[in-house]
Amino acid sequence: MTGSLNISAVGRPAFFLIRLPVCVAQRFACLTFLAYAFLAAWPVGAQRPALISPEVLQDRRVIFRFYAPKAQDVRVSFERGGQSLTKGAEGVWEATLGPLDPGSYRYVFSVDGASVTDPRNIETERMQVVTRSILHVPGAAFMDIKNVPHGAVAVVNYYSGVLKKFRRFHIYTPPGYEANPKRYPVLYLLHGANESDDSWSTVGRAGFILDNLIADGKAVPMIVVMPNGHVDQTPPDLSFLGRTLPSRPGGPQALRVELLDFPQEFAKDVMPYVESHYRTSADRAHRAIAGLSMGGSQTLNIALANPEKYSAIGVFSSGILGENVADWEKARLTTLDDPNSKKGLKMIWFSTGSDDSLITYTRATVEMLNRHGFNATFEESSGAHTWVNWRNYLYQFAPRLFR
Amino acid sequence: MTGSLNISAVGRPAFFLIRLPVCVAQRFACLTFLAYAFLAAWPVGAQRPALISPEVLQDRRVIFRFYAPKAQDVRVSFERGGQSLTKGAEGVWEATLGPLDPGSYRYVFSVDGASVTDPRNIETERMQVVTRSILHVPGAAFMDIKNVPHGAVAVVNYYSGVLKKFRRFHIYTPPGYEANPKRYPVLYLLHGANESDDSWSTVGRAGFILDNLIADGKAVPMIVVMPNGHVDQTPPDLSFLGRTLPSRPGGPQALRVELLDFPQEFAKDVMPYVESHYRTSADRAHRAIAGLSMGGSQTLNIALANPEKYSAIGVFSSGILGENVADWEKARLTTLDDPNSKKGLKMIWFSTGSDDSLITYTRATVEMLNRHGFNATFEESSGAHTWVNWRNYLYQFAPRLFR
Repeated sequence: MTGSLNISAVGRPAFFLIRLPVCVAQRFACLTFLAYAFLAAWPVGAQRPALISPEVLQDRRVIFRFYAPKAQDVRVSFERGGQSLTKGAEGVWEATLGPLDPGSYRYVFSVDGASVTDPRNIETERMQVVTRSILHVPGAAFMDIKNVPHGAVAVVNYYSGVLKKFRRFHIYTPPGYEANPKRYPVLYLLHGANESDDSWSTVGRAGFILDNLIADGKAVPMIVVMPNGHVDQTPPDLSFLGRTLPSRPGGPQALRVELLDFPQEFAKDVMPYVESHYRTSADRAHRAIAGLSMGGSQTLNIALANPEKYSAIGVFSSGILGENVADWEKARLTTLDDPNSKKGLKMIWFSTGSDDSLITYTRATVEMLNRHGFNATFEESSGAHTWVNWRNYLYQFAPRLFR
Repeated sequence: MTGSLNISAVGRPAFFLIRLPVCVAQRFACLTFLAYAFLAAWPVGAQRPALISPEVLQDRRVIFRFYAPKAQDVRVSFERGGQSLTKGAEGVWEATLGPLDPGSYRYVFSVDGASVTDPRNIETERMQVVTRSILHVPGAAFMDIKNVPHGAVAVVNYYSGVLKKFRRFHIYTPPGYEANPKRYPVLYLLHGANESDDSWSTVGRAGFILDNLIADGKAVPMIVVMPNGHVDQTPPDLSFLGRTLPSRPGGPQALRVELLDFPQEFAKDVMPYVESHYRTSADRAHRAIAGLSMGGSQTLNIALANPEKYSAIGVFSSGILGENVADWEKARLTTLDDPNSKKGLKMIWFSTGSDDSLITYTRATVEMLNRHGFNATFEESSGAHTWVNWRNYLYQFAPRLFR
């Protein structure tokens, strides 16, 4: 019995088309060809030569590699800074950075001016309109994966009646949630501008931070809901293409859309979905909300629209944004001065880094809230407007909840 | 009161460093600067100009765009075929393909020989060692998102005692699972070579297929567990780099590792984790397993090691691989001829496309099983070794389960 194995049929592109004899009588040849057909299938084959990027060394230096045989200039870019890669054998560019502080970083390669993710890195972040590669440098115990009981992080799709389209959120359910049919408190946790419902679970490592806090007995088991705070996934400016494409206004108007429209969707779609589908303790004492940057401002808009719903509010590296504090205050005077707004509010916690220029917004917002009798606390941290701080803030904020 | 807003502090790289006056008295200027600081933050700013890719038109033609101001040659590559892009204004390359059949496709751009994902596309697949961009062309009702009750797809991290490392699986819980504390049947669903636990939920659209089948009353609500069938995430061959890097054997030996080691991990880590953490009906009548290609061969190795555990087995575009059928048979004679292996086995279902060269393996495996008294059915489909078939097979297989 003889046959033939068409390599393209297991996925390699047409230019790799080779028909190999497969002969059951010659067993070794059969197994060799079959194995290569699988292991050299298109997804890897199209990216020869094989290489690893990023490679994290024991001393926390990191090697980045990128295959670009004809490029003149390849760089790796982080949110702050970057470095040129050097061309080596077989068109593989390489750079070694660090040692880097433990943590997660997002980065891209810039190849002759074209910005691309690292195709060899399977860790990515889905942002608002782009994908980013994620590097994790282990060594910070509070956010590394450890051999402790783990929760689960799910993606949930739903139809938003407010926005008239399909949307999604991420939801962390703590260890024990599936087996133990009790109810759990809920933290709603919002991302920043340009990010998405994916961000807290990738670069933000929220699931690992919660797993570790719960395992150490430092936080109570809780559900964490991470919605998508951008109401639109299209980039703001496409006119240069000279054609009509889906678009949305840029500049101040776009930010105001996020700050005002998302809170509507949150109140009418996100929270009702979570509370009708998950085993939440749906009362004020067991409901908290927090967010970073744009999400911190959304948090204030959401929570102060219905303060009777939340027992804890967290604002990370933010304050009232996109609107004058005095105007914001004037529009909410009744709520701000209502004793019921404060009666069950155990905590309204701000933290912003001393090098973060939004600290002036934080201060103005805290001062205004406290003028109305709120007991807002502001813990100024070191650092700037970065995920280093936001992961730390979650690690500090979550243990204080639902006690 | 005046302040200053450092744009780099909200994320733009140092070369964009501009200090802008922020003046609360001049409200319009404040809001403008603040909004741009957010919306033009690094993740988008580093990928100017703004553009959309891929753009799916009403007639199912698809426009791909890629910004590469200095490139000489840009192509978009699918698993079968591809097309060159044409350079247009401002360094934006563009190509229009199709109309394409409804469905999900994975693709990369090839830029002067460097293979990269589409950085503007937020839909990606995490494969074994690389990331891929995913294009979804709507129009196939069974796999599109619809306004029906949706389940959730979670990522679960666990420590594998067999493999001595952290691993993960995806798990689909059906609509109603969280609210209704009953037990559910379980389908274990395995991916193919080069793929990962992510693949059935991205290019495979398993969650949407199940949501739609359940909403139509065509399938019973079930849990679907999608483990990682590769025991190693490192590429097989790195020696050309002239340095010692994490590696693993290539060729036949690597395939045999997947086919033999993963079933051990499945039996000792994956299934026990699922059955102790989720509300499964943990008996033969409520447990099924299926897989595609390499995962189909793993399915046979897993199920025939413990046939008393499964009431349904699905093998998609596969058969016994990496091993001679006669050898495989000889090693399992006792099990194959044990009446208990067949007593509660309601279905052992194979489907392979007539253009798929693995069809000879399917036929040989079905023939061998039926020689031992199994009632294996083989439904030959049209098509080849592609996700078009695997999504269709899931759509045909799932409705037959747990009835």
